[in-house]
Amino acid sequence: MDREELKRFFENYPDFWGHLNENEKNFTLETSHCVSYHTGQSVHSSNNRCAGVLFLVNGDLRVYIMSEEGKEVTLYRLSAGDICIMSASCVMDDVTFDVYVDATTDVSAVLLPTSTFSKLQKGNIYIENFSNKIKARRFSDVMWTMQQILFFSFDRRLAIFLYDEYVKNGPIIRYSHLEIARFLGSAREVVSRMLKYFESEGIVTVSRKEIEIIDKKKLKERI
Amino acid sequence: MDREELKRFFENYPDFWGHLNENEKNFTLETSHCVSYHTGQSVHSSNNRCAGVLFLVNGDLRVYIMSEEGKEVTLYRLSAGDICIMSASCVMDDVTFDVYVDATTDVSAVLLPTSTFSKLQKGNIYIENFSNKIKARRFSDVMWTMQQILFFSFDRRLAIFLYDEYVKNGPIIRYSHLEIARFLGSAREVVSRMLKYFESEGIVTVSRKEIEIIDKKKLKERI
Repeated sequence: MDREELKRFFENYPDFWGHLNENEKNFTLETSHCVSYHTGQSVHSSNNRCAGVLFLVNGDLRVYIMSEEGKEVTLYRLSAGDICIMSASCVMDDVTFDVYVDATTDVSAVLLPTSTFSKLQKGNIYIENFSNKIKARRFSDVMWTMQQILFFSFDRRLAIFLYDEYVKNGPIIRYSHLEIARFLGSAREVVSRMLKYFESEGIVTVSRKEIEIIDKKKLKERI
Repeated sequence: MDREELKRFFENYPDFWGHLNENEKNFTLETSHCVSYHTGQSVHSSNNRCAGVLFLVNGDLRVYIMSEEGKEVTLYRLSAGDICIMSASCVMDDVTFDVYVDATTDVSAVLLPTSTFSKLQKGNIYIENFSNKIKARRFSDVMWTMQQILFFSFDRRLAIFLYDEYVKNGPIIRYSHLEIARFLGSAREVVSRMLKYFESEGIVTVSRKEIEIIDKKKLKERI
């Protein structure tokens, strides 16, 4: 993107762009740039990467936490149009937990670098609030996930996941059982077992490479 | 509290009070008032109570979620000096989850009613940010809880709970096993079993009415 395209891009985010003065706008345009990540690449981890705020142009990100033993729990997922704020968590005092962000597809995004974001946030109450508002929204996303994990039985959680995928991308799901297990904070074996059960119920067919949802109505009844 | 006392009280919260103009200050002083709750009383529930923002003067609050089957999971606890914002969640668009607040001791607080808070928040970016900042901090509290529940084994979670209580209130703990189970999102039987085990290890003594921590060092080793 050249400067003019970048400007038009940011204009899609009036809560952000609309509250910058001319100096801040110039500073933002001078320091922001396009970035891309390939499928599976780490975008942010608690220790070594803290690139900045990502405005997603294309592709999906997964935000998750990890135990000392390497167990992962997905907090939420982001797609085109969303803003990933956790990739700037190193400059946010109130984010005290370690968080990881991976690209689950090829991703292109506009990066507002950590140093730029930090400077804008300190000097402009609207930008500080913009960032806190996004955090508050993610808080609700995480609460939803937490309720899924703590209150719903696994068949229901898997059904919700498959149904969401169906609505988003159609009946063919190309995630591996291991990937689905990671999304749901479960184990590959548990996912495979439950998919087999769903297959026996005529809800899906499962082959080595993909899962096909063959009865949307039955799937919905499981939610 | 009379008007002058109320004003002095709010001055302890410069992030809030320091950003109000004279009109807003008068409006706040005219509409805020002291409230009290007795031990065990419901302060907020998703359906029927949404009193406003509580500035805690004395006592403790527990903020939790509940499943359809009545299973409770404590998100965090608040004490004197803290601000309870979830008791005004009905006027916060970005809080989409149902949350409950109970008094775990006798509580006195200053209540900024929902209608006052809503008006201040709409007209003053600093107050909107004040509220979002608190939410972001609670987000981190909840992430801590989530990691406890998802990643730590129960003995560790119970040890952390007992140790926190020790630091706060000394070696005698007067919660029932059922209450502790609720705090930890577990079952009474599980708590009783683990306490018995801790007793056999010489960490605590358990009687019908209370738990006494007799070996702080051993308890800490469990964390």
